[in-house]
Amino acid sequence: MTELKNDLLLKALRGESVERPPVWMMRQAGRYLPDYIKLREKYDFFTRVQTPELATEITLQPIDQVGVDAAIIFSDILVIPQAMGVEVLMEEGKGPSLPRTIKTQEDIDNLITTGVEESLGYMYAALNLTKKELNGRVPLIGFAGAPWTILCYMVEGKGSKTWDKAKQFAYTQPALAHQLLQKITDITILYLIEQVKAGADTVQVFDSWAGSLSPADFKIYAQPYLFQIATALKPYAPVILFPKGSWYALEDITGSDASGVGIDWCITPQMARQLTNNSITIQGNFDPAMLLAPIPEIKKAVTTMIDAFGPQRYIANLGHGITPNVPVDHARAFVDAVKSYSI
Amino acid sequence: MTELKNDLLLKALRGESVERPPVWMMRQAGRYLPDYIKLREKYDFFTRVQTPELATEITLQPIDQVGVDAAIIFSDILVIPQAMGVEVLMEEGKGPSLPRTIKTQEDIDNLITTGVEESLGYMYAALNLTKKELNGRVPLIGFAGAPWTILCYMVEGKGSKTWDKAKQFAYTQPALAHQLLQKITDITILYLIEQVKAGADTVQVFDSWAGSLSPADFKIYAQPYLFQIATALKPYAPVILFPKGSWYALEDITGSDASGVGIDWCITPQMARQLTNNSITIQGNFDPAMLLAPIPEIKKAVTTMIDAFGPQRYIANLGHGITPNVPVDHARAFVDAVKSYSI
Repeated sequence: MTELKNDLLLKALRGESVERPPVWMMRQAGRYLPDYIKLREKYDFFTRVQTPELATEITLQPIDQVGVDAAIIFSDILVIPQAMGVEVLMEEGKGPSLPRTIKTQEDIDNLITTGVEESLGYMYAALNLTKKELNGRVPLIGFAGAPWTILCYMVEGKGSKTWDKAKQFAYTQPALAHQLLQKITDITILYLIEQVKAGADTVQVFDSWAGSLSPADFKIYAQPYLFQIATALKPYAPVILFPKGSWYALEDITGSDASGVGIDWCITPQMARQLTNNSITIQGNFDPAMLLAPIPEIKKAVTTMIDAFGPQRYIANLGHGITPNVPVDHARAFVDAVKSYSI
Repeated sequence: MTELKNDLLLKALRGESVERPPVWMMRQAGRYLPDYIKLREKYDFFTRVQTPELATEITLQPIDQVGVDAAIIFSDILVIPQAMGVEVLMEEGKGPSLPRTIKTQEDIDNLITTGVEESLGYMYAALNLTKKELNGRVPLIGFAGAPWTILCYMVEGKGSKTWDKAKQFAYTQPALAHQLLQKITDITILYLIEQVKAGADTVQVFDSWAGSLSPADFKIYAQPYLFQIATALKPYAPVILFPKGSWYALEDITGSDASGVGIDWCITPQMARQLTNNSITIQGNFDPAMLLAPIPEIKKAVTTMIDAFGPQRYIANLGHGITPNVPVDHARAFVDAVKSYSI
């Protein structure tokens, strides 16, 4: 194994002292980069995801072009339902759709649940290749969707503002919901372990729609499954949980086996530190829309953010994915501002 | 003036002791009611809003059919930009669109800003007529959109998940944003005062997209304007502020001139009471999707909610508008559960 030249991210996750906070951006390998758009014009979404050479190329783009302190493998959270036998369509600019949604026990029984992680070999090949290409420059992040978020898509069939159908499924057929959540959890654990074996230095679990749940329902439908994943992965690699919008769960998450927790911009750094008692690494929470502000404003806001979180036990990131309309030099200004932060 | 037979809502807003909490539902006059849908088939959206007899009929439907403790006038927050000279299109089932968006100083200069409240006579006529028809059964709520939320629509031109363009406008041209926010604020104050004069017993300000802002930006672009409105209206009627998603502002709002604050379901009652120090009336926060659960579950969840908030200084409501797919008997079960709560 090549030794890491830049291990700021892993140090921050272990709670070790760093000379400055590490920085990366959710969706950093994506649509705001002209070189990504060129590849998008040549290959459809799942070709990009399932061809290790393409996934690696895309993963490396922001390392070379924006200078982030970590690579996150280019993939999608919906490869899991796809590997469970559910058709997933990805139309550019429209978001995903899953024509056959989960409604009944029979639908769940028909899902593929054994050997799913083995069918995702392209992911491990992409991690392997990326790891080699990185040659120790920065750590590599693996990831998966959280069970609640995956259920949302499997039941709803597409994106939603309110996730009504997913919630109705959970509230009217809780036993079925838990069955499905557990199946996704079991598969996700095996999948993430394989990602670590293939080269991921840490893994992040994206619960993008956790924030649609009340604190009480989060504890029923999201938290137990997130925590199972954190516990199962702990012997393998540090885990970052990102239940977007679920600031109310920060106290509980601090007591979990996760090493880091992602937060969005709708909470002050002070409040986040208070709720986590400064005893878990926090990742976030720059408003992606703020990347559209003039560069001097971005730099100022980054300094304010790091000052407020404090530079230790902290990973500078956005509070959600970078949007396609962000100019590359604005993304770079964000990253540079973190890198030039002096303690 | 007819004396109110049911003044629970006003008592709760004044912090007076009640025998049980009042209950109403955001969007209670709307798409889940078959009688509303019948009217929708005959008259387009703005005909319904601008014809006092129709607006009154729609406003009264949930009083008669669901038994809520307050009427809220049927209207829309976008009547303000419309009256400012901005075209607003409302296509059934698609959400609003504003073809000519605000981008420049010239766009702002071209807005109508004087006499706007006078051009909304149909609203006051509807309030007048509704007040008469209610004949003191329950209080009547007037409303307006909050300046930040109205700016969102005027700049973005339609609904958005991230309100990127609105935020970009604010972050790159803050002086213009504040100019626009102040103009909307001034008009909204006059508009709400006229609503009170026409019969509204209280007014609610809907800041539906406040939660897209970070706590720091909420304090810059939303809070000052909300507070101006609360202060200006205080001599006329109690004000309820509903900055959806902005739980982080609860402490500040408690110190404002508002009598009540609406919250969504993404905060525990305990936390909301703690942040407001139990010194402002809280309204909320039932997850609208929970109305899709079986009726016994709804009843149980209502009791749990009231127990957690406590029955005083509390208005039972949803955490956001009722969705079109809720069966009427489920809405009624929600209301009945509150009404049968015994202290």
